Amino acid sequence: MRLATIRTATGTSAVRIDGDRYADLGAADVGELLRTPDWRAAAENATADRAVEGLTYAPVVPRPGKILCVGLNYRNHILEMGRELPEYPTLFAKFPEALVGAHDDVLLAPESGAVDWEAELAIVIGERVRRASADEAEAAIAGFSVLNDVTMRDWQYRSPQWLQGKTFEATTPFGPVLVTPDELPGGTRPALELSCTVDGEPVQKAGTDDLVFDPVELVRYTSTILTLQPGDVIATGTPGGVGHARKPARYLTDGARLGTEISGIGRLDNMARAERW
Amino acid sequence: MRLATIRTATGTSAVRIDGDRYADLGAADVGELLRTPDWRAAAENATADRAVEGLTYAPVVPRPGKILCVGLNYRNHILEMGRELPEYPTLFAKFPEALVGAHDDVLLAPESGAVDWEAELAIVIGERVRRASADEAEAAIAGFSVLNDVTMRDWQYRSPQWLQGKTFEATTPFGPVLVTPDELPGGTRPALELSCTVDGEPVQKAGTDDLVFDPVELVRYTSTILTLQPGDVIATGTPGGVGHARKPARYLTDGARLGTEISGIGRLDNMARAERW
Repeated sequence: MRLATIRTATGTSAVRIDGDRYADLGAADVGELLRTPDWRAAAENATADRAVEGLTYAPVVPRPGKILCVGLNYRNHILEMGRELPEYPTLFAKFPEALVGAHDDVLLAPESGAVDWEAELAIVIGERVRRASADEAEAAIAGFSVLNDVTMRDWQYRSPQWLQGKTFEATTPFGPVLVTPDELPGGTRPALELSCTVDGEPVQKAGTDDLVFDPVELVRYTSTILTLQPGDVIATGTPGGVGHARKPARYLTDGARLGTEISGIGRLDNMARAERW
Repeated sequence: MRLATIRTATGTSAVRIDGDRYADLGAADVGELLRTPDWRAAAENATADRAVEGLTYAPVVPRPGKILCVGLNYRNHILEMGRELPEYPTLFAKFPEALVGAHDDVLLAPESGAVDWEAELAIVIGERVRRASADEAEAAIAGFSVLNDVTMRDWQYRSPQWLQGKTFEATTPFGPVLVTPDELPGGTRPALELSCTVDGEPVQKAGTDDLVFDPVELVRYTSTILTLQPGDVIATGTPGGVGHARKPARYLTDGARLGTEISGIGRLDNMARAERW
């Protein structure tokens, strides 16, 4: 199944998309849907009787209870940097105010001069789970989506903790859809091609099977710390190719087109826009 | 005013406490109250017609949209460590699953062997605000409460980012009340005595007027990054005296009594309890 949160005249609505048709699922968004008992059956049984033409996408989960992000997690990139593979995931947070839809503008706040891209595979949780076994972790994954963890590098490095560079308002595109694991090669450990482009030029490319800590392990690990709830999101980290690591460094500028794509899931197309304030 | 979220037979309720009487404010908790337009007038005008005896306290805001925490922020402690005062606040996050009430157990997860205390003054936001001036920041502060940012030191230092040691489930007491700035010496930059005891022994003591970044500045700064919403919380950092810095290090053990107090606000009394799992 492919689920999305679309914008409507009165708010948003959770839908299931089948090719060029969609079914309205009777929930305000995919987060609310995932909190419904038996959401899978309800979503499967709805009738796709409307045309997708002209749909606009909100963040696939507009208000996750938690957004957990993972630091350096692509094996090839860590090894090529001459570092050792980490023993534990690096975890930090992002708040829902950062999220935008798949085709919305990414805002370049006037306070930052170093806005960078980080294409990522995002896990969406579909069941409440704590101290999950690997099997329970696998069952708790509702599906996967695409997220770009756009980062204000100057703010990220103002202090030892990255949060302030990671959660600027309206910077993080997330969507367009959640795809359930049964539709993806590799299932809950999906083997997909992740890529990022700026003005059409490829800047990042990796296979999501190159993660040091795969989605099942990330759900298991984080659920040791606290209860994961339906609609929670784990962004799994980004491969090499970010603008900050280039010589000279390259950042997003007003009018830049940011493309973020994962094969089998979908594509985010966002315009970077200088914020008027 | 002194506001609290109390536990009731059917859930929780926001109340105003006047000495030995309280008024029910018709909201499920202080977070919901703060999202009500004119919450100040509504809370002031309610009649305190019930006896406080036997009240039990939930976290004063049980489900904040955001919990922002500040790293090293006490001037004397930074200077005595031989460090320079920081140019910017260090910010990290905590999730609501970590919160417990003023007299609840603090859970010692079996996965950690290094659970430490961090007594803190907490700011609670009462108005939606973005890119606040100092005056707007001041007006956006609903009041102050007491929080102990209990930390799993072993998990905090597993990776460069502290989050995983900062947000274990049911570890962070928060309450018992929110006190509005008009009741506090120093108002929105309160001059109060903060202290922490373990089994009655004093371990931390400082004046909240020793903050490098005071509450008004913290609201102003963080509102540059994203919109602050009513019920959001900023924990302002802890002074010297944590267990991890002692030689030998000292941590909370099963049955330890943790006391966290701020003059003019109130006191948290929590028992550390080994979690059965």
